[in-house]
Amino acid sequence: MKARIFVTLKPGVLDPQGKAIQHALEGLGFADVEDVRQGKLIELEVADGTDDATLDAMCRQLLANTVIENYRIERL
Amino acid sequence: MKARIFVTLKPGVLDPQGKAIQHALEGLGFADVEDVRQGKLIELEVADGTDDATLDAMCRQLLANTVIENYRIERL
Repeated sequence: MKARIFVTLKPGVLDPQGKAIQHALEGLGFADVEDVRQGKLIELEVADGTDDATLDAMCRQLLANTVIENYRIERL
Repeated sequence: MKARIFVTLKPGVLDPQGKAIQHALEGLGFADVEDVRQGKLIELEVADGTDDATLDAMCRQLLANTVIENYRIERL
């Protein structure tokens, strides 16, 4: 079974990587970009019986830093 | 308008970061993880009239390295 984890910075947390991307886009002539936030996408191939609680535990223990990041789990 | 860009490594491209995550998950007791691939999620806040061609140009010119990465654009 495949699962996708989307890890994004919480609102209010500074994102210098996103700002760098925004400035680079502006430099390339894409002037109408108002904001950029960079997050992580983690694709897991797990055993078929894996339940939501296990995926959630993976996120809380390793994949996301819940102090500054939100995560969303998508099962495929 | 918001747009999400998902950047993933092409199949066959080595992903040491994904492997590191997989080993760390195993170390935490999540033994049934068969594969992990790490990608990027870029959230853009762009002007409302921005068309698909512009978003595509951003991906090709800056956000994705199309030699080794695939990208997918999702408009919200």
